[in-house]
Amino acid sequence: MATLGDIGVSAVINIVTAFAFLLAFALLRIQPINDRVYFPKWYLTGARASPRHSANLVANFVNLNFNTYLTFLNWMPQTLRMKEPQIIDHAGLDSAAFLRIYILGLKIFGPTAIVAFLVLIPVNASGGMLFFLSRDLVISDIDKLSISNVQPKSPKFFAHIFMMYLFTFWACYMLYKEYDVVASMRLNFLALKSRRAEQFTVLVRNVPHVPGNSVSDTVKCFFKKNHSTHYLCHQTVYNANKYARAVRKRQKLQNKLDYNQLKLERHPNTRPTRKTGLLGLWGEKLDSIEYYQQKIKELDEKLTMEHQKILKDPKRIMSAAFVSFNSRWGAAVCAQTQQSKNPILWLTDWAPEPRDVYWKNLAIPFISLSIRKLVISLAVFALVFFYIIPITFVQSLANLEGLERVVPFLRPILEWSFIKSFLQGFLPGLALKVFLWLLPGILMTMSKIEGHVAFSVLERSTAAKYYFFMLVNVFLGSIVAGTAIQQLHSFLHQSPTQIPRTIGVSIPMKATFFITYIMVDGWAGMAGEILRLKPLIMFHLKNTLMVKTERDRLKAMNPKSIDFPEAIPSLQLYFLMGAVYAVVTPILLPFILIFFAFAYFVYRHQVINVYNQRYESAAAFWPHVHHRIIASLLISQLLLLGLLSTKKAANSTPLLVVLPILTVTFHKFCKSRFEPAFRKYPLEEAVEKDTQDEVSEPVNDMKSYLCEAYLHPVLRSIEEFELFELGVDNNRAHIPSQVATELEPVSGSGSGSHSPKEENKVAPKRQDLEVVVEQHDKT
Amino acid sequence: MATLGDIGVSAVINIVTAFAFLLAFALLRIQPINDRVYFPKWYLTGARASPRHSANLVANFVNLNFNTYLTFLNWMPQTLRMKEPQIIDHAGLDSAAFLRIYILGLKIFGPTAIVAFLVLIPVNASGGMLFFLSRDLVISDIDKLSISNVQPKSPKFFAHIFMMYLFTFWACYMLYKEYDVVASMRLNFLALKSRRAEQFTVLVRNVPHVPGNSVSDTVKCFFKKNHSTHYLCHQTVYNANKYARAVRKRQKLQNKLDYNQLKLERHPNTRPTRKTGLLGLWGEKLDSIEYYQQKIKELDEKLTMEHQKILKDPKRIMSAAFVSFNSRWGAAVCAQTQQSKNPILWLTDWAPEPRDVYWKNLAIPFISLSIRKLVISLAVFALVFFYIIPITFVQSLANLEGLERVVPFLRPILEWSFIKSFLQGFLPGLALKVFLWLLPGILMTMSKIEGHVAFSVLERSTAAKYYFFMLVNVFLGSIVAGTAIQQLHSFLHQSPTQIPRTIGVSIPMKATFFITYIMVDGWAGMAGEILRLKPLIMFHLKNTLMVKTERDRLKAMNPKSIDFPEAIPSLQLYFLMGAVYAVVTPILLPFILIFFAFAYFVYRHQVINVYNQRYESAAAFWPHVHHRIIASLLISQLLLLGLLSTKKAANSTPLLVVLPILTVTFHKFCKSRFEPAFRKYPLEEAVEKDTQDEVSEPVNDMKSYLCEAYLHPVLRSIEEFELFELGVDNNRAHIPSQVATELEPVSGSGSGSHSPKEENKVAPKRQDLEVVVEQHDKT
Repeated sequence: MATLGDIGVSAVINIVTAFAFLLAFALLRIQPINDRVYFPKWYLTGARASPRHSANLVANFVNLNFNTYLTFLNWMPQTLRMKEPQIIDHAGLDSAAFLRIYILGLKIFGPTAIVAFLVLIPVNASGGMLFFLSRDLVISDIDKLSISNVQPKSPKFFAHIFMMYLFTFWACYMLYKEYDVVASMRLNFLALKSRRAEQFTVLVRNVPHVPGNSVSDTVKCFFKKNHSTHYLCHQTVYNANKYARAVRKRQKLQNKLDYNQLKLERHPNTRPTRKTGLLGLWGEKLDSIEYYQQKIKELDEKLTMEHQKILKDPKRIMSAAFVSFNSRWGAAVCAQTQQSKNPILWLTDWAPEPRDVYWKNLAIPFISLSIRKLVISLAVFALVFFYIIPITFVQSLANLEGLERVVPFLRPILEWSFIKSFLQGFLPGLALKVFLWLLPGILMTMSKIEGHVAFSVLERSTAAKYYFFMLVNVFLGSIVAGTAIQQLHSFLHQSPTQIPRTIGVSIPMKATFFITYIMVDGWAGMAGEILRLKPLIMFHLKNTLMVKTERDRLKAMNPKSIDFPEAIPSLQLYFLMGAVYAVVTPILLPFILIFFAFAYFVYRHQVINVYNQRYESAAAFWPHVHHRIIASLLISQLLLLGLLSTKKAANSTPLLVVLPILTVTFHKFCKSRFEPAFRKYPLEEAVEKDTQDEVSEPVNDMKSYLCEAYLHPVLRSIEEFELFELGVDNNRAHIPSQVATELEPVSGSGSGSHSPKEENKVAPKRQDLEVVVEQHDKT
Repeated sequence: MATLGDIGVSAVINIVTAFAFLLAFALLRIQPINDRVYFPKWYLTGARASPRHSANLVANFVNLNFNTYLTFLNWMPQTLRMKEPQIIDHAGLDSAAFLRIYILGLKIFGPTAIVAFLVLIPVNASGGMLFFLSRDLVISDIDKLSISNVQPKSPKFFAHIFMMYLFTFWACYMLYKEYDVVASMRLNFLALKSRRAEQFTVLVRNVPHVPGNSVSDTVKCFFKKNHSTHYLCHQTVYNANKYARAVRKRQKLQNKLDYNQLKLERHPNTRPTRKTGLLGLWGEKLDSIEYYQQKIKELDEKLTMEHQKILKDPKRIMSAAFVSFNSRWGAAVCAQTQQSKNPILWLTDWAPEPRDVYWKNLAIPFISLSIRKLVISLAVFALVFFYIIPITFVQSLANLEGLERVVPFLRPILEWSFIKSFLQGFLPGLALKVFLWLLPGILMTMSKIEGHVAFSVLERSTAAKYYFFMLVNVFLGSIVAGTAIQQLHSFLHQSPTQIPRTIGVSIPMKATFFITYIMVDGWAGMAGEILRLKPLIMFHLKNTLMVKTERDRLKAMNPKSIDFPEAIPSLQLYFLMGAVYAVVTPILLPFILIFFAFAYFVYRHQVINVYNQRYESAAAFWPHVHHRIIASLLISQLLLLGLLSTKKAANSTPLLVVLPILTVTFHKFCKSRFEPAFRKYPLEEAVEKDTQDEVSEPVNDMKSYLCEAYLHPVLRSIEEFELFELGVDNNRAHIPSQVATELEPVSGSGSGSHSPKEENKVAPKRQDLEVVVEQHDKT
């Protein structure tokens, strides 16, 4: 049990760490050499080009403009300069909606904190129960401000119940408003989008095999018959996984060729050579350029054959197709209705964006999907509750004695008391650390096995699993202080009314732990997020060691998307902590508020300057966010019920039982009120947009655009595939007559050479890469 | 604990009762006077007319053809003569599917019983555990054949586990096959139906109020815009409840007028008279015919005004409409898609058949629906678990002393020891009996409040509630032997693993109770069902006392529909008993099998000869039947798990835990495989049927038929409303060019005057009533 003083010390340490990170960030980001680490988004939108080739060689790497050092914290106000509509234009609705979650946290917990401080803290502080007990228990100062300080059977508990009602109603009100706003933002966003392939296309799975007919013919025949006036064309799905592997191999060879050619250009006298053996270390010496050109030529022949094979071999054609319609209305109808008499054939759903498609899972038949779902849900359950078993096993192996057996020559060093104690403290935790580091990857693999067909869905599914893991192992695990297996065991053998009591009673005691958690994980963690230490190091390592061509630099820079599968569940854990402690120990709320505010700044900066979303799901994750906040409310209500029943405030039970029922009803209402906006596409909207388009931008030949949009990128051209793998929107899905949107970059860089005003004009997105592509074309 | 002997005695009593009922039935049914009680269906289809007006007066009432008495049990083979397709033609798919449930029971439990007898009974009997214990416990003979007889920790339990696996797989296999058959029967049935209004019509609810526009204009405008090529016409829904009440009053007056006119016809010299005062008992004497004619005239004027008012007053127009389309495709699309941006407006769903519509609930707005659902689910929960509280309260009032206080003059009689003991045994149960008798009505009212818009849905919803009540209060209540509140209390305070143990351990002990239950409720009850004692008495009472006109006789005869809300849940209780006892006490299975077989005969007879379905939902209840049998399987698995854990067969737990998981997976698979056939209408089917119709029976003016089909029957004509209230299909929904289906009645009546062969030809359905109507037209 920590005293207020302990918490103060911890706070100071974390604040200092956070400030150190921020300072480092502020200094590092204005160095031109780090520009690609801290502003990659602008490189990808084309608003910035490489700052190399300045006159002063040093100025290429270090910022010599010392004025900019004086304003090194100006990134914070700068991030606020870009308004929400601009953020949506610049980074997409997903990012904008993600930022709204933090604001929602502030909106929910801000007023709650004020009321709780005004009402509950005085009530709790005047309880004085702990004053009498303090000789027996080690009581923290924080506990004197929490519900623990109120005497059993005290009528004061009605203040807490009242606060819980107030908090629930306020939270529900804010949730409702936010859901409303996000739903209409989504509809607006979809409505404002110019014609895109996914608006006219439906993904059809489980196309039945008709003997004597190709998949393509079957699809054509079926849709010509059942959607006669709306069907336009379709694109069958090819199994191009093998081909894609060969293409990736070719890319590597091409890269090496480029590198050698560059070498030759710089030193025209010495032609680069390589040896034929393993890793080019021994064997016959050859001219590198000729060698790679030869290799590429051979591979190209193979690729051409493979390409032909894919398009012709019926076995390579999967039983799925992207069917396009001549109007949004037709597509909306097809996506929402049942097609076939056998409901597990001809399953239709909206096609994801072309860049969002996870091609590998398109051909899984229906029965396999059911089995996969079952297996994966069992696996997740096992992972959450029993992950500790293999880790304990590994830990039992990876101890000092084991290490000494494996590497006996290190024994003298291991015997040193300092090293020994360090290792003894470090080794047992290592397996766990490695596991936690691997966890998101494991969960993502599970989601892939589950059979989702879009990256966006994969990420949402992974996020759900990760949240479940965190809820059980971080939240409940910290409160009940036991492994998940022990919890599972006790949950199975306790009565349903006993469980909330067991957990509820230890909640107030864990407040200090969670305050520390918020400061370490939230405050310092967020400062670490903006510093981007890992990408920074990785970029410079790659830049120095591996980058041979412009393409490599692009790859080294690749900023990736916001890590939704990790970020959203972590964030939701704060909502859970806030909801649970709002009434029990309100002193926790300011810490959470600071986290929300700070994280909002950080992610706003990152969204504007760093991340490049791989796909755009138009805030499709919002229902999940909403559901989990509702779940947090329910958990907090049950735990308060359990806590109060241990406080012998039994006559309050009926009052508190009403609350979960109301919350569930609210949830159901929200579900039917808003969720269709995220799952379906109203016909009203479709018709409106169709008529609008007809008037404003008539298209003569939509068919040719639509038919090509959903070809596997690797089958289109090798360059397209490269763009796809880098997550760059190649705009294939876009059906022309688009209006170029003007983006105003919010640049925070101090290096004068690319100030915001100069870069007002947006170059075509693919500029950087096209340079690369052109180079290839010349070779 | 009953011995085998006790059970034998009970069986004999029940078999004798059942046979007595059957004998009575066999004798009563061949009396011409009872013809309308036992063969009303044939009167309604028009295959039989009144047998009155024979030469021999006695022969009109009593069957004098003594040959027919010799073959009095021939109804049983006769019921089997009609094949399933004919039953579907004759009584509809609902009835045919209902009969299939009994066959499904035979299919599931028949082979199970054989295997269980061959495997488990020897295993159990050789256990010999109870032999040692028999001095301490009162052991029944049946227990020696049950799982109780196996010693703890015995490896013999693996035989039971194996049987459970076998049973589950067999049951699932049969369920799958049956679901498949019923689903395709449904699709076939719908496909074979000639054009009917409900195939082209969608019910739209929550039409938003557009200021300055009528509901009708709003609907027209919306659908013209969003379903431009498919929208045909629509019918707004009027609030005609007040008008319907007035019409009912007019019917009563008309009836009295008819009666008096008949009287006059028979005795042309004395004109009937009545007094003006209360109930016609005192006051001025008037000519009855003139009086009623005057009254009807007055009422008719009022009705005309009210009729005008309904059609014009915008307040009488509800925010709902029946929208019709020019093709099945158009209707299927509209029913399955989201229309509006605001998903709680413009809610579309398939329109129920016109005769199935529950008009009163059409105008409930969405938010009210959510609240109603919440309130009703809470109410059902309270009813199921706390119904005993008010009943105990009433019981405490309705005791002998209370009775003596209220009716002191009866005291001498009440003091008689015989009467006293009878009443003391009778009174406390009376409140409960009355409650149980009222229960289906209460549950139906709850369903109505919940806001369903079709009688079929109301009945399904009521059945679900009734099943829940039976499960908790009959099944669990009998096993755990306590009130539902006590159970709820112990469930809340026991661990989730303890509950199946508590219940499981007492299952074998209750086998004899359930055997008796099956014999009383199942065997004797079924015999009572075929005897139709209540309708028999009611018909003759009404016929003697109240029937004045032909219309009254029709009303007195009204056979109603099969009582799905009671029949299906009761039936499912047998599935539950069978599943639970199949492995534990297999000796119960033959009793259930006899019930299924006997009930099949009885209901087959009733479906053919008695019941007249009010609506046709095309077996829409099947998913519910399927779900609840799956739930029975799950319950039986959990209880066996609990039972075995008390038997210390702990190493069997993992084996048994797998089973519920597999069952749930099977359930999910079935749900996605078959349920859409019951909820949606595949476009493939719609297109097929549309093209078929175009070729085979083109219709020139579908609009005029469709527009009228969904007018409230009372607004169409008073006669139509009468038919509607009697549940006679007035075929309004039918769009012409129909082919009259030929029905061959399976007559079991001995009276020679209307043998099946003579009545082969089907007269128009409304024959009986049209006579009445013509009479009215003349007056």
